[in-house]
Amino acid sequence: MKKYVLIVAGGRGLRMGGDLPKQFIPLEGKPVLMHTLETFHRWDASAGLILVLPEDHQPYWKMLCREIGCKVPHRIANGGETRFHSVRNGLQSLSEEIGNASGRNEKVLVAVHDGVRPFVSPEVISKCFTEAEISGAAIPVVPVVDSLREFTGGTSHPVDRSRYQAVQTPQVFDYDLLAKAYEQPYTDLFTDDASVVEAFGHGIVTVPGNRENIKITTPFDLLVAEALLKQHT
Amino acid sequence: MKKYVLIVAGGRGLRMGGDLPKQFIPLEGKPVLMHTLETFHRWDASAGLILVLPEDHQPYWKMLCREIGCKVPHRIANGGETRFHSVRNGLQSLSEEIGNASGRNEKVLVAVHDGVRPFVSPEVISKCFTEAEISGAAIPVVPVVDSLREFTGGTSHPVDRSRYQAVQTPQVFDYDLLAKAYEQPYTDLFTDDASVVEAFGHGIVTVPGNRENIKITTPFDLLVAEALLKQHT
Repeated sequence: MKKYVLIVAGGRGLRMGGDLPKQFIPLEGKPVLMHTLETFHRWDASAGLILVLPEDHQPYWKMLCREIGCKVPHRIANGGETRFHSVRNGLQSLSEEIGNASGRNEKVLVAVHDGVRPFVSPEVISKCFTEAEISGAAIPVVPVVDSLREFTGGTSHPVDRSRYQAVQTPQVFDYDLLAKAYEQPYTDLFTDDASVVEAFGHGIVTVPGNRENIKITTPFDLLVAEALLKQHT
Repeated sequence: MKKYVLIVAGGRGLRMGGDLPKQFIPLEGKPVLMHTLETFHRWDASAGLILVLPEDHQPYWKMLCREIGCKVPHRIANGGETRFHSVRNGLQSLSEEIGNASGRNEKVLVAVHDGVRPFVSPEVISKCFTEAEISGAAIPVVPVVDSLREFTGGTSHPVDRSRYQAVQTPQVFDYDLLAKAYEQPYTDLFTDDASVVEAFGHGIVTVPGNRENIKITTPFDLLVAEALLKQHT
């Protein structure tokens, strides 16, 4: 079985005068994105890592890699307009190397992972790959902690939170399935890779995620991330 | 306007050999519950604070208060079988002091708050009280960060997370409304105070909560709580 991980880091370009994109924010001296790469490299050094980055972020990333001395082998693919387009670009960059199903005698699995989730546990990554090998598509989910309300037409009502789970990444798929699913035309109903594969008609298996696998998008998350890193060192 | 806050701390008794209940876990030398009391005291020292604690926790709490020197005035009411019963006990302990609507010339508002949420901001507390004074019932909510899936009959499907919000506390109500709503017989559809008031036929106003207002229930939350406290000092 051959394993790849597409690490998706931001659909948008660096805006003039805008904030430093979250994936580049330093955590204990290293950008968030480098922590994420290291997480997958520590999990399985034989997995092929592809970083999907907007073209105008790439020179900055390469400079960071040189300065800090990134030791994790990875290649870079160009980001697209939306997350969907970024993942599609990442898959296209793999297609030549992987070829099609008929010309290959081992299974290929691809994980798609948010660049700003460095704290996924190795157990969760393994479990997603194991389940995806069997069923073709597996994603990690965690229970919803707070009560939930649904808002419709200006009012809201409580819903049974035990019926809902929060979705994380890595979302892991059979390569051929994912590549075909990503040939569909884009719609804004595609909120993650699982929804693209489901729209293509394939079911999704869910596995328990780890609570620490947060998506770093706010200053609050960054504070949590620093606390998590301190705990690990 | 007279303000009360019921701080609800655990429906269950201390089990022999069980873990220390989360509300007693020390955070920078003080139990979580004491941080929560201090948050409301700092917000408005004139608000009446009622701690609803299981009877068999009370000697331990009083010992902690003596040892640490709790400076926040509060009274104690007995916890009940479930959160619903605890809140009802807390309201009953207030009823003699407050009396009924006809014999009183100022409005009385009551907040119900989770004992393990010390990080609610003063702005959010104020906003809930202000809205509850107008409408009778106000609760804080925050957007859902992760993608959500709904599980039904063994399978799951993605839902539009922008339609959902996560519910926090304090949930603030007109006292007479809340006391009457809590005369209803208990059902397990009552997941929070808002759902009790809604079952009684009264609508709920939602106000934006603060993201830091987490419910401390796991070791991960405790780590986040320590990071939040360090930031504030």
